[in-house]
Amino acid sequence: MNLKELSQMLGLSQTTISRALNGYPEVNEETRQRVAKAAAETGYRPNRAALRLATGKAGSLGLVMPISPDLSADIHFAEFQSGLAEACLEHEFHFVIIPAHPAAEQQAIRGLVGSGAVDAFYLAYLRANDPRIAMAKSLSVPFIVHGRSQGIAEDYPYLDIDNEQAFHQATELLIGLGHRHFALLNGPEELDFALRRRIGAQKALMAAQLELPPAAISHTQMTDQWGYRKMSALLQGPVRPTAVLCASTVLALGAVRAINDAGLTVGQDISLVAHDDDLPLLKPEHFRVPLTTTRSSLRDAGRRVAQRLIADIDTPPQGPPLQELWQAELVIRASTGPAPS
Amino acid sequence: MNLKELSQMLGLSQTTISRALNGYPEVNEETRQRVAKAAAETGYRPNRAALRLATGKAGSLGLVMPISPDLSADIHFAEFQSGLAEACLEHEFHFVIIPAHPAAEQQAIRGLVGSGAVDAFYLAYLRANDPRIAMAKSLSVPFIVHGRSQGIAEDYPYLDIDNEQAFHQATELLIGLGHRHFALLNGPEELDFALRRRIGAQKALMAAQLELPPAAISHTQMTDQWGYRKMSALLQGPVRPTAVLCASTVLALGAVRAINDAGLTVGQDISLVAHDDDLPLLKPEHFRVPLTTTRSSLRDAGRRVAQRLIADIDTPPQGPPLQELWQAELVIRASTGPAPS
Repeated sequence: MNLKELSQMLGLSQTTISRALNGYPEVNEETRQRVAKAAAETGYRPNRAALRLATGKAGSLGLVMPISPDLSADIHFAEFQSGLAEACLEHEFHFVIIPAHPAAEQQAIRGLVGSGAVDAFYLAYLRANDPRIAMAKSLSVPFIVHGRSQGIAEDYPYLDIDNEQAFHQATELLIGLGHRHFALLNGPEELDFALRRRIGAQKALMAAQLELPPAAISHTQMTDQWGYRKMSALLQGPVRPTAVLCASTVLALGAVRAINDAGLTVGQDISLVAHDDDLPLLKPEHFRVPLTTTRSSLRDAGRRVAQRLIADIDTPPQGPPLQELWQAELVIRASTGPAPS
Repeated sequence: MNLKELSQMLGLSQTTISRALNGYPEVNEETRQRVAKAAAETGYRPNRAALRLATGKAGSLGLVMPISPDLSADIHFAEFQSGLAEACLEHEFHFVIIPAHPAAEQQAIRGLVGSGAVDAFYLAYLRANDPRIAMAKSLSVPFIVHGRSQGIAEDYPYLDIDNEQAFHQATELLIGLGHRHFALLNGPEELDFALRRRIGAQKALMAAQLELPPAAISHTQMTDQWGYRKMSALLQGPVRPTAVLCASTVLALGAVRAINDAGLTVGQDISLVAHDDDLPLLKPEHFRVPLTTTRSSLRDAGRRVAQRLIADIDTPPQGPPLQELWQAELVIRASTGPAPS
């Protein structure tokens, strides 16, 4: 049963059938059910899938789900995945996820590509001098790096945001407001994006002859609990910061709670800027004191990575690798104010 | 290269190597890197994977990622997935996700199972009289239903929580506190868990000769935004509820914001009980007024579903299907108080 036969059998156009099977809202519920039923009963599979069987393509993208010892559900990972899913749905792709600890990631990817289960893959959570990039280049299927890796020549395809520039700009804003005592609640130290954000903040501070003392920098998983714990510690330290940079609105959620618990007010006693991945659950404008943020959509990044991989599967890339560097947008809200005198 | 050979080459026990490759924290970082490097260089794959190649098993579980028209990242889905990943990691499984609109789900599962890409799968987001259960039974690999389907004989393997009992108990608590005007912010109307939660609330109210007027029930996606919107509408309605049941802490997040925006106080003007899936980001005790909840861990459910599927792959199930019904725990905090007089 092919699309044409199904179309004749049902008396519907081929376009309507495709749309019905892909859940487009233009098709009414009755028609959708009729088409779904007929497709199930006749065993109809869309042409694309048939084509894939013929070409030996799996129709799938591979990724590693990083599992850290505390094994927390990562909302950043989920948000990226939702963009990936959106693009996969559009192109009738699925994706294969291997949960792996960092030490087993290379083996996981090799196994996945070797098994033929995926047509392309991407690397995420890059570290400095990340050996996975050389490995990825040695494999036979297209890949993209989501992020970059300090210390390695940038001769690979990537999509990254300009982390250094984002935190440079955020720090300059705070310096301009008269702040002199800074703290940084950052992501895991070994991750490239965290390193670049720290460098961005440090460069801006250095230019103003200020500094970020080591005790004022924390590197943790980006959870609410770590934000609370590290902010609480900062508030009890010898020099209380008046300006805090957070690598995620998730860290900010905990940090704001710690500030409130200490009887202090965000935007007055302590100014705070967070990086905003555009997580639907943690909109910066919904915080009691709306957060100033550096914003870049993680879902858009997921969609773009999937689209590029799918395009690369259809047409193997030629010439220099495609490299995209997205600028985050600085959005000023009420959490940043003049340094208390 | 097998495990024994790798063990001899590295001078480490087979157990240490397995643990290193699976990222157990007992293995120090240096040893882990040494093992990972040797495994990568020698192309070593664990026995289990080798065994799988021999038996023709894929070593993977399949699932459909439901995509609704508004295509929001679902934190509940992500939390379940983290439990799934935990069990998969333990057993060296991966999982395959097909994003699909509801109308295309059956076709997606058929395709996935037919392709041999998965050894087992599970169904989630069950609806009343869900046709996927009959379809699942007709396929050749093990499956589990996460949830149940009203209107269909319960002769299939499932794991569900006792949604009716959870909301019955929560409603009784509020009735006991003197509340007479109730509202329910529920999940999508077509989903089985939402139906059972509504029935639980309605039965408790009926027993107390109270009712839940249709205008006081909303069925939406379980997002922060919908919680805010529907709670705002309730506050502007003719009869303001003093007791609100929320199907998720995510809905409660928006509902609480709406209550605060209206200048009302949770636990005094309006009592609120939410179902708590134990999402790390939305701990009920972190709300400004800690939330009374019915609690059941979605991550535990994900882990259990994966463990059962993996066991069923190794040993095809015999006899009556395994059916588990977990009880949610009612945890009373400050968001529930006496009805205002």
